[in-house]
Amino acid sequence: MSINSFGHLLRLTTWGESHGAAIGCVIDGCPPGIAVDEGHIQRFLDLRRPGTGKNVSPRQEADLVRILSGVYERKTTGTPIALMIENSDARSADYPANAPYRPGHADYSYDAKYGFRDPRGGGRASARETAMRVAGGAVARLVIPEVIIAGRVVEIGGESDAERWDALLDEARAGGDSLGALVECVASGVPAGWGAPVYAKLDADLAAAAMGINAVKAVEIGDGFGAARLKGSENADAMRSGARFDSNHAGGIAGGISTGQPIVLRVAFKPTSSIRIAVPSIDASGQEVDAVTTGRHDPCVGIRGAPVVEAMVALVLADHKLLHRGQCGGQ
Amino acid sequence: MSINSFGHLLRLTTWGESHGAAIGCVIDGCPPGIAVDEGHIQRFLDLRRPGTGKNVSPRQEADLVRILSGVYERKTTGTPIALMIENSDARSADYPANAPYRPGHADYSYDAKYGFRDPRGGGRASARETAMRVAGGAVARLVIPEVIIAGRVVEIGGESDAERWDALLDEARAGGDSLGALVECVASGVPAGWGAPVYAKLDADLAAAAMGINAVKAVEIGDGFGAARLKGSENADAMRSGARFDSNHAGGIAGGISTGQPIVLRVAFKPTSSIRIAVPSIDASGQEVDAVTTGRHDPCVGIRGAPVVEAMVALVLADHKLLHRGQCGGQ
Amino acid sequence: MSINSFGHLLRLTTWGESHGAAIGCVIDGCPPGIAVDEGHIQRFLDLRRPGTGKNVSPRQEADLVRILSGVYERKTTGTPIALMIENSDARSADYPANAPYRPGHADYSYDAKYGFRDPRGGGRASARETAMRVAGGAVARLVIPEVIIAGRVVEIGGESDAERWDALLDEARAGGDSLGALVECVASGVPAGWGAPVYAKLDADLAAAAMGINAVKAVEIGDGFGAARLKGSENADAMRSGARFDSNHAGGIAGGISTGQPIVLRVAFKPTSSIRIAVPSIDASGQEVDAVTTGRHDPCVGIRGAPVVEAMVALVLADHKLLHRGQCGGQ
Amino acid sequence: MSINSFGHLLRLTTWGESHGAAIGCVIDGCPPGIAVDEGHIQRFLDLRRPGTGKNVSPRQEADLVRILSGVYERKTTGTPIALMIENSDARSADYPANAPYRPGHADYSYDAKYGFRDPRGGGRASARETAMRVAGGAVARLVIPEVIIAGRVVEIGGESDAERWDALLDEARAGGDSLGALVECVASGVPAGWGAPVYAKLDADLAAAAMGINAVKAVEIGDGFGAARLKGSENADAMRSGARFDSNHAGGIAGGISTGQPIVLRVAFKPTSSIRIAVPSIDASGQEVDAVTTGRHDPCVGIRGAPVVEAMVALVLADHKLLHRGQCGGQ
Repeated sequence: MSINSFGHLLRLTTWGESHGAAIGCVIDGCPPGIAVDEGHIQRFLDLRRPGTGKNVSPRQEADLVRILSGVYERKTTGTPIALMIENSDARSADYPANAPYRPGHADYSYDAKYGFRDPRGGGRASARETAMRVAGGAVARLVIPEVIIAGRVVEIGGESDAERWDALLDEARAGGDSLGALVECVASGVPAGWGAPVYAKLDADLAAAAMGINAVKAVEIGDGFGAARLKGSENADAMRSGARFDSNHAGGIAGGISTGQPIVLRVAFKPTSSIRIAVPSIDASGQEVDAVTTGRHDPCVGIRGAPVVEAMVALVLADHKLLHRGQCGGQ
Repeated sequence: MSINSFGHLLRLTTWGESHGAAIGCVIDGCPPGIAVDEGHIQRFLDLRRPGTGKNVSPRQEADLVRILSGVYERKTTGTPIALMIENSDARSADYPANAPYRPGHADYSYDAKYGFRDPRGGGRASARETAMRVAGGAVARLVIPEVIIAGRVVEIGGESDAERWDALLDEARAGGDSLGALVECVASGVPAGWGAPVYAKLDADLAAAAMGINAVKAVEIGDGFGAARLKGSENADAMRSGARFDSNHAGGIAGGISTGQPIVLRVAFKPTSSIRIAVPSIDASGQEVDAVTTGRHDPCVGIRGAPVVEAMVALVLADHKLLHRGQCGGQ
Repeated sequence: MSINSFGHLLRLTTWGESHGAAIGCVIDGCPPGIAVDEGHIQRFLDLRRPGTGKNVSPRQEADLVRILSGVYERKTTGTPIALMIENSDARSADYPANAPYRPGHADYSYDAKYGFRDPRGGGRASARETAMRVAGGAVARLVIPEVIIAGRVVEIGGESDAERWDALLDEARAGGDSLGALVECVASGVPAGWGAPVYAKLDADLAAAAMGINAVKAVEIGDGFGAARLKGSENADAMRSGARFDSNHAGGIAGGISTGQPIVLRVAFKPTSSIRIAVPSIDASGQEVDAVTTGRHDPCVGIRGAPVVEAMVALVLADHKLLHRGQCGGQ
Repeated sequence: MSINSFGHLLRLTTWGESHGAAIGCVIDGCPPGIAVDEGHIQRFLDLRRPGTGKNVSPRQEADLVRILSGVYERKTTGTPIALMIENSDARSADYPANAPYRPGHADYSYDAKYGFRDPRGGGRASARETAMRVAGGAVARLVIPEVIIAGRVVEIGGESDAERWDALLDEARAGGDSLGALVECVASGVPAGWGAPVYAKLDADLAAAAMGINAVKAVEIGDGFGAARLKGSENADAMRSGARFDSNHAGGIAGGISTGQPIVLRVAFKPTSSIRIAVPSIDASGQEVDAVTTGRHDPCVGIRGAPVVEAMVALVLADHKLLHRGQCGGQ
């Protein structure tokens, strides 16, 4: 119910603004006795960290995570795991309080909801929040050692040939513009039987997990939109003795429950909303004024999206492992 | 947390199997004093009812809904509204207990999860469950009279020209095959400010709502997958004085919160899994055996999907209206 | 979150008014493969049924329960179990719409909350709702066959000598008055380790479960209020090899987690609020008018409270068994 | 669902062990625009802080709270409020890893649940966790400015004459023993209509809130256990024109919903379990060994309990204000 929490039994609650003192999360419901340390979490954080290349935001954040609770002598205790990252490089001066609503950002909608907001760097709506999803996902992975989760960018600016991406990004950056991206994530090793019918379907939870990531506008499982263009006979995944399947149009989920095949989802990231090209907008007083972003931003936010998608998939799968074990017993 | 419930404050819990005694739902958290009667709910049920044409299942169900609680003198009382539909035309003989796992259905995954299942007509995994979503959605609409929700099929079998659909469906039916479909749903009149940041984002909840519908494999908001192919400058929705927007690439949601523009989502339904064409499969004992569906089924389940998508959208929006009012006050 | 639902993983949702068409419940999250039929549930319902003696309400309700879903060939399927009891003997004429607010009842507070209410027989606030708790508890017991739950009235009208109760009740009934009661419930066989720290403590959940029963005003675990009058040295439960305890002041719970000792709770039921003695009150228009109850009511509602307390304890324990298994694994 | 979270719409999640790096909490769902700063929260923390007198633990903790998120320019933003207190004075050496299970503590039950635990100072089960409840309650109070919440110790060691308490405590301390206490809490100004029927009853939520506090073994609303000894005619709260009541046996709640009268609850704290008197126990290997507490502890943990009870009452009431507004509208 908590609107800043995610998950049923394994539950991630995040907090923190982009330019506040720190960001953090609480991971509740983690099984006890799992080996974990800061190094393990840090490795995943480093994958999404800004400042690591020309195609991601030059903001310099060490993003050093601290484990504040729930771990004793490098093992989870079963009590809530609190993680925190101090915000070391937050240049609030980049964000004047009375700035225009930046199109594509949550500026206007937050003001409409709450009456006002923390304007520094997108505040709570900043993609910085996703660092905590990655941290939570790093812990979730340890709950499901039987599963391998691999996400990767498969398309940038509509181009699937990765050799063309660098040129496209250079061009966008030079023009002060940005590009969208497609991320595909595959989870192998999920046994048949995880998930739940009707309203906590594995695919429904994955869809919420993915769509809740900043800048995501679409999600599909298996053949997804393509399945709507297939005939039933083409879309059928024939089965063979030993519960083997001839194909995986379903993307590893049937009726909301895993089939034992790899779970495949694809996620669309819109182009970064922060661009140096002026877009007509208004400010909080209703005055028309062009919005031009001058802060530091990724030319393609989707590039850093892959580890976030992986993390959300890990959280959903770990949660459903526990849910399944709770209701149906077993390992 | 309940795995057969949906929603935060306005909460739908459904129950019932396709060929059991009845199906039903409980709608909890509905505001008091709202005028409602069985006729109102029945009108929406009739829109998704089978047996109404050659392109939908010939199963004859009157689908007469009864209000069992929560309504007094045709007004909601604020207490749980229980609805029930008796299953009048359930031919269980169509479903032998030791049938092959039907590809695309939840047969195998349910068995993997629960060890056994109610095999009659898909049991809990039957699309019949969606009747209760439609009933719940009919009540939810009354909570948000300011919103108009309109869903429609926009593509069948990859064809967007509606004049071609009849021929395509005839052909599929004649061949014992089935077709997928695309449903678009637009919700107008949603004020700016509904939704919540991070993990109960309006779009995340809509994605879960849509992906949880039987046979749905993909969902997109606004430009969706198309947004991943736009540049930031193309995707930006410029704003004008009066909080008017020049475009609606965002589909009415920014940062998980409504912008006041129409909310637009598109949902992909896979082709009906029940087809008369044999598909290799196995039975519960692991024996290889062809699956051929002989029961009554829709050649294109997506056709009846539009009212279900509408209903889920209504449930999400009504829920978020109450959530917003709870946290931020106001009407 | 649902305000008419109870439990985390094993979740009971009830619906229905005292004088509506029916009452019912949905039990979600029940493990699959558990043998159950209507006879099993009926046996527990019969224990709390009115009309079975002079000290309980003469209302004649067969209270025949029907299983509508979630059970196939007398085994739970893991999908939601819907139960329903038709209201056969509801004399609405006993309850004029413009009656005075009955002191001790929810009449006034419901009107204050919802603006109006279903006045027939207490509507949703009627003790009749507890029939569904008993039905839910009957199912929950099957989830925890290792536990024996025994509730009993230990005090009526302040008198703990059971031989005196009949005379006290005769006297109260003759005078149109009513008596309170104390119910004690002991759950044996709960292994050490069920429960959860901090906000889903086993005792906190039991307290909510008990306090949520109609007419309950107090609950204590183990020595309860008595513990506040002991010294630490007197209250300590010494332990011996084999995890045996010398005493059970704690009532089987330490730090919110079961210790393996019997769980003991005591619950106070206020005297039935419906009495034939006039009490000054007001009606919905604010007019002063005496309230005199003429309908059929128990002289001591606590007598029928014992099976309800047992049921709620069963629901809490079964829920925590699943929660524990979900987080920590094992049987 | 989260087992370290509390509340429906206004939701407190706490984390941290007694002797870890820090303790903290996340308050989610708080309305925006409420004035708050660290000074406000600190004032309430100082009331429960140890080291402030001879009758409370001499542990010296400055308990300085930091607001890490959710507040901008001293106003709540509607996003999650994270609070943290560093643990400055944690003497882990007081707690050898292989210590005997301390009777009355959660040592044995935690080990039974999780297999092992953080033994330093009670870890997660330490009363130190309640600092974060107090901090959360301080924020919750701001959500309900119309309500005044006053808790106080009304009995120590069975003695209600406050002038005798000092001598009793001196005696207990001298003997290495401890005393229980009774805390009464009154919330005035709650309008009629807060609460919810059946499973989120105001009294049920208060009972869970109170029983979930460390060392609490009993809770009663209004006349509580005394009500079980009254006749219906004695227990009836007569009403007068203007919705005034002649008495308040009900403790301000009828049918789970507030009546507009002061809400009154009483909570029993057991004597501090940590005593210097040896009690037979076992260690983790099952070996019999006397438990003697040598660390720093309160002779009567109930004394510091009053601000914690107040805080939990504030959290429940603020939560129900938002829930009521969500479902029923209005202020």
